Amino acid sequence: MEQVVEKRIGISSLLDKVISAQEAASFIQDGNIVGMSGFTRAGDAKVVPLALAERAKNENLKLDVYTGASLGPEVDKILAEAGGIRKRGPYQGDAAIRNLINTGEVLYVDAHLSHNAELVRQGIIGPIDFAIIEATAITKDGFLVPTTSVGNSPIFAQYAKNIIVELNLAHSESLIGVHDIYIPEVQGQRQPIPLLSATDRIGEIGIKINPEKIKAIVISNEQDAPSLIVDPDDETQEMANHLLNFLRSEITAGRLTNKLAPLQSGVGSVANAVLEGFKVSEFEDLIIFSEVLQDAVFNLIDAGKVSFASCTSITISEELQKKVYGNIEKYADKIIIRPQEISNHPEVIRRLGLIAINAALEVDIYGNVNSTHVGGTKMMNGIGGSGDFTRNSRLSIFVTKSYAKGGKLSSIVPMVAHHDHTEHDVHVIVTEQGVADLRGLAPKERVPLIIENCVHPDFKQQLWDYYNEAVELTGNAQTPHNLEKALSWHVNAAKTGSMKL
Amino acid sequence: MEQVVEKRIGISSLLDKVISAQEAASFIQDGNIVGMSGFTRAGDAKVVPLALAERAKNENLKLDVYTGASLGPEVDKILAEAGGIRKRGPYQGDAAIRNLINTGEVLYVDAHLSHNAELVRQGIIGPIDFAIIEATAITKDGFLVPTTSVGNSPIFAQYAKNIIVELNLAHSESLIGVHDIYIPEVQGQRQPIPLLSATDRIGEIGIKINPEKIKAIVISNEQDAPSLIVDPDDETQEMANHLLNFLRSEITAGRLTNKLAPLQSGVGSVANAVLEGFKVSEFEDLIIFSEVLQDAVFNLIDAGKVSFASCTSITISEELQKKVYGNIEKYADKIIIRPQEISNHPEVIRRLGLIAINAALEVDIYGNVNSTHVGGTKMMNGIGGSGDFTRNSRLSIFVTKSYAKGGKLSSIVPMVAHHDHTEHDVHVIVTEQGVADLRGLAPKERVPLIIENCVHPDFKQQLWDYYNEAVELTGNAQTPHNLEKALSWHVNAAKTGSMKL
Ligand SMILES: CC(C)(COP(=O)(O)OP(=O)(O)OC[C@H]1O[C@@H](n2cnc3c(N)ncnc32)[C@H](O)[C@@H]1OP(=O)(O)O)[C@@H](O)C(=O)NCCC(=O)NCCS
Ligand SMILES: CC(C)(COP(=O)(O)OP(=O)(O)OC[C@H]1O[C@@H](n2cnc3c(N)ncnc32)[C@H](O)[C@@H]1OP(=O)(O)O)[C@@H](O)C(=O)NCCC(=O)NCCS
Repeated sequence: MEQVVEKRIGISSLLDKVISAQEAASFIQDGNIVGMSGFTRAGDAKVVPLALAERAKNENLKLDVYTGASLGPEVDKILAEAGGIRKRGPYQGDAAIRNLINTGEVLYVDAHLSHNAELVRQGIIGPIDFAIIEATAITKDGFLVPTTSVGNSPIFAQYAKNIIVELNLAHSESLIGVHDIYIPEVQGQRQPIPLLSATDRIGEIGIKINPEKIKAIVISNEQDAPSLIVDPDDETQEMANHLLNFLRSEITAGRLTNKLAPLQSGVGSVANAVLEGFKVSEFEDLIIFSEVLQDAVFNLIDAGKVSFASCTSITISEELQKKVYGNIEKYADKIIIRPQEISNHPEVIRRLGLIAINAALEVDIYGNVNSTHVGGTKMMNGIGGSGDFTRNSRLSIFVTKSYAKGGKLSSIVPMVAHHDHTEHDVHVIVTEQGVADLRGLAPKERVPLIIENCVHPDFKQQLWDYYNEAVELTGNAQTPHNLEKALSWHVNAAKTGSMKL
Repeated sequence: MEQVVEKRIGISSLLDKVISAQEAASFIQDGNIVGMSGFTRAGDAKVVPLALAERAKNENLKLDVYTGASLGPEVDKILAEAGGIRKRGPYQGDAAIRNLINTGEVLYVDAHLSHNAELVRQGIIGPIDFAIIEATAITKDGFLVPTTSVGNSPIFAQYAKNIIVELNLAHSESLIGVHDIYIPEVQGQRQPIPLLSATDRIGEIGIKINPEKIKAIVISNEQDAPSLIVDPDDETQEMANHLLNFLRSEITAGRLTNKLAPLQSGVGSVANAVLEGFKVSEFEDLIIFSEVLQDAVFNLIDAGKVSFASCTSITISEELQKKVYGNIEKYADKIIIRPQEISNHPEVIRRLGLIAINAALEVDIYGNVNSTHVGGTKMMNGIGGSGDFTRNSRLSIFVTKSYAKGGKLSSIVPMVAHHDHTEHDVHVIVTEQGVADLRGLAPKERVPLIIENCVHPDFKQQLWDYYNEAVELTGNAQTPHNLEKALSWHVNAAKTGSMKL
């Protein structure tokens, strides 16, 4: 055995568990329920899934695959296209599996990311036959040290009957000590989660495992698939400016100090670009308490704007991967990677009083948000942690361009065609047009703010016409709608490609 | 001054603050923001609001009125009909104010009940000019002891510029010691809420007040308006039986013990009737951790089924009021009344692992729930605490009869016309027809369970027809819908009174 491998496996009795990916994959049976590491393309097992995909091409092998969140192509493209996935949860973000989901070939259970661990405890997700977990090392004290994400790995390792470790030598040993693993007790016997500040360490450096459950250790050398976000543009810069001005007005109102509050920023290009906008602001010493750290966070650390970042996953572009992972010591004392049960926990989010910034597909004139279903029926990615943060944050902000598909679609509609976040949970909407602050307002008070401040000029009058007719029709009810036309913009778009009447 | 009054006002310097309701009401100005005690008709101020209503009949007096939840007729009928309310939040349940809300005469901000305190801290609700709080006593240590509810009174008292106390002599002094007042610190400087069990006492017996803020003490002798729920019937008994059988199957599956878990039960006749069904079950030593205690809880205490109940309000029928309040000593050691910020707190609900049972107006074939808007536009009561409990409980159960309006409407529809709780938060649906356990299922897996187990026979085929067409139309997408017909059942009902095609 190579010395570098021996150095990373602290328990010598485990050394003879090192086998090939093919051998490890052969343990897994058709119909198994598998819990995998990985969160938004980071820290996922790679070589065992590829071996599983090979099998799935040639034999009947269909698995239920649960993860932290979305994975790289090994699972969500190659294994999926090989027909190896029966059911998938709780999040995905790959065009290949998305297509299989939207043609009914893969069952998809889209869920709040903070809920998964409870479902594992209750056996609703499970019984888990195998956990497949990418690791940096196994320490001599029996801690499995994750790589670039933690996600649901701790709870999978705790409840799985068997564990397969993918020991990834491509990741520096300097990652050891960056993680903070804390697993709450079962409900009813649970203590408060002792996290009082985003920078607190409350747990262990790795996942405490029972070595007897480890059935295989497979050596890998693969990098995470880099993130797919696109760069900021003029309009996302406009959105960032609107957001920064809004935050300034909150400081003036005495609701925030110029340290703001711990920031959460959602997945995707738009949320990343808006966060990037803080680079040219006066804000300093910012703290991030988020699910995923995307490129913007590292750029803000480099720019001296962000002093600390807590997350459950690091998902960055190829360029940044080289910079960050080639130099992890520089960032190690500024970062903590936690289980998603902690990063997304309502208890923690509410206590810390986060400012949450997430992206929407579309919003409606009353402030309901669709984050997931294009045209109300086709899954894009999933709700992810957006509900965990939105419901529990001090300030819950949604960002979206006011239009999609080159201006043919309005991102503000009479009624969203799918509801992920309701009017009760959405505080502020930001588009490149402006900001609507909905806090404390009745539905009918929100309408003029949303239409006048956020809607693209092409669709303003059309929305006013809808709303005025709805007020008339309902006798000015609490939430005026004309149910015959509420979804007609989407029906039109499906037929003609455009929401313009 | 009467001796009984002096006995209840422990701080002698406050004795000369005792004035008439009219005098106290005269302090309040047009445009004031007022925070009132009261939660689902219990513990609300009564005589000062009546004096305000008299003024509103004769002068320009419009107030923004925030409370714990719904109030009795003094505010939500008499003051409202006198034109004295500009804006109302966060919950109501009276036909009079409902009508004014649905004709646009009163603005209504329907909100998660656990969110109110944060909004007060942030000044989004506020600045509060006056808090008007019904109390049993003011102790010599400066604690204001509430009556039959706590609601938002602690946070209103903390942030209001002025306080008017309605000292209600109709309530027994034996209520002193029943309350447990704990107010979390501001976000970011907050400690964990130290509540580890439903029966824990973590705070004080009353609301610590600054006596200088007390501008008036008004003596009252009024009873709470009794609750308006209707008795259980054969169908609610059927629903209870289905629920009990479901809970038994959870015990068999090893997910619950025969002590179950702390139970939350929602407002209204149906939730009350279903809880009442536990009387003829084998379950004993049950613990309630709920928002409102309705009749069923006291009947279950009397029947030896419930050993402890934590709440923020006691809302019972006239008959039970006599029994319980005439004999409060008998119940005092089995009950704790807490601020709604604690009874409804995500941190506490998740930690304790509650079983939540709430009523729906309608649900859809994917498990989304409408709790609030009849026909999608007209407000019934409000979301109340249903979102706090539903999102965070171990088991989130919705109960509804499968039909409404004598069978003309189906309570299970293709798409709910208003979304309060999404598919991600709804675990189990119970109707008189049966149970659908949706946990861990993809949307398309949920459909047959809901249609076959829960829908009234009159509407089964009609729902299947809708669904099958939607699958065809969307190419079997994640969540099949035919947006042209998704709300057509409601459109039909509005036109013809019936959802039958
Ligand atoms: C909403 C979400 C899809 C936006 O992603 P993004 O990368 O910032 O946004 P984009 O504007 O690039 O949109 C992504 C795609 O949706 C399409 N889209 C955007 N708005 C749309 C609308 N109103 N109608 C239809 N399609 C729309 C875009 O055209 C683009 O499609 P393409 O991939 O075919 O080009 C993404 O944030 C998401 O999945 N959110 C849900 C999960 C979440 O919020 N997690 C946060 C917790 S960390
Ligand atoms: C949903 C809710 C209204 C049900 O109340 P309930 O008293 O148990 O139910 P009922 O079946 O008696 O229905 C109440 C009314 O709604 C009507 N209704 C019920 N289902 C309906 C439907 N599908 N479509 C239209 N109307 C409907 C009933 O006909 C009845 O109307 P009426 O007052 O004109 O007779 C009530 O539970 C509520 O307000 N919930 C929201 C708040 C909440 O859940 N809080 C819980 C935390 S404690």
